[in-house]
Amino acid sequence: MTAGVDTGGRAPGRPRSAHVDEAIIEAVLGLLAEGGSVETLSIEAIAARAGVGKATIYRRWSGKEALLVDAIASLKGPPPEPLGESVREDLIRLLSVGPKKPDERTAQIMSCLVPEVQRSPERYRLYQGLVEPRREVMRQVLRQGISSGELRADLDVEVAVAALTAPVLIQRMLRWHPGLDDESLPARVVDTLLAGLAH
Amino acid sequence: MTAGVDTGGRAPGRPRSAHVDEAIIEAVLGLLAEGGSVETLSIEAIAARAGVGKATIYRRWSGKEALLVDAIASLKGPPPEPLGESVREDLIRLLSVGPKKPDERTAQIMSCLVPEVQRSPERYRLYQGLVEPRREVMRQVLRQGISSGELRADLDVEVAVAALTAPVLIQRMLRWHPGLDDESLPARVVDTLLAGLAH
Repeated sequence: MTAGVDTGGRAPGRPRSAHVDEAIIEAVLGLLAEGGSVETLSIEAIAARAGVGKATIYRRWSGKEALLVDAIASLKGPPPEPLGESVREDLIRLLSVGPKKPDERTAQIMSCLVPEVQRSPERYRLYQGLVEPRREVMRQVLRQGISSGELRADLDVEVAVAALTAPVLIQRMLRWHPGLDDESLPARVVDTLLAGLAH
Repeated sequence: MTAGVDTGGRAPGRPRSAHVDEAIIEAVLGLLAEGGSVETLSIEAIAARAGVGKATIYRRWSGKEALLVDAIASLKGPPPEPLGESVREDLIRLLSVGPKKPDERTAQIMSCLVPEVQRSPERYRLYQGLVEPRREVMRQVLRQGISSGELRADLDVEVAVAALTAPVLIQRMLRWHPGLDDESLPARVVDTLLAGLAH
């Protein structure tokens, strides 16, 4: 879950404990869910909540920012892999990953991070680093669909990625429309967009 | 700009000054843009920044929450009116309203409000009160388009509203994709969705 982001000074040969990693990530998410801002989030508070020492955290992460990226990545889940069955199935699959069940806690945490990301160019860069690989997976599915003839040759791929992703995102993050059912939304979005609005 | 939300105890017959209203709203937006949270936003601070007395604010608004709703409404601009020319033109028009130019200040303020809205059922209700009339205008355009035969008869109207609105919203609020041009996005979204993704 935290692979590739641990840039901390972990002693060579010391085995990582997945359990401890998870407890630390969970502590970050718990503090954010309770309304803590990134500014007020301290390694001390995270350590106390996870029941570990500060040194244990610093052995695993270079600091708060790196830890935060892993915490968000854990909410988002691993980058999805398309199955290559059909464009429709792949798109629904891509839009259905993320928190297994969009819950209030996730909405709370994600929404807390929005202003933090806007406030700092460095965080915006980290955020783009999380989002871009996911956009790229969807682009590949769309390009594949163009090649196979399932999709229009003149498709505006970048806008299609945005139009597919955004409704699910705002629903998960903002609870934008209380009348939309979260569970069925990915399939409804994909079907509506594939068919198009025009007669 | 503040019509219909002023529930404060304004003395009968006392004329409203649009200039003072604007200065107060501008003070709220300025404080939010500088990273102030709704919790830390005080009538004292707003009054000081606007150069008015607290009583002046309380004559115009019942309190902080009502003032906040008007401040957000002023960012969003007046609810748009479709021209009834064509579905395409009307949809582009509806998606192009809001801040004339999506700027960093608006992104900052809007993103600051996201967690505040999630945190309080009362604010969520106020937020829905702002969003729902805008959704309804777009629904009407879509239903009109179904009637006129421009749009498919079996259109999933609720999902179409979400799919049209969401890409513009996340771009404005999150600067979701640095590669997308904000100016041309509404037209690109509308054209992509009208035509559909499928071949």
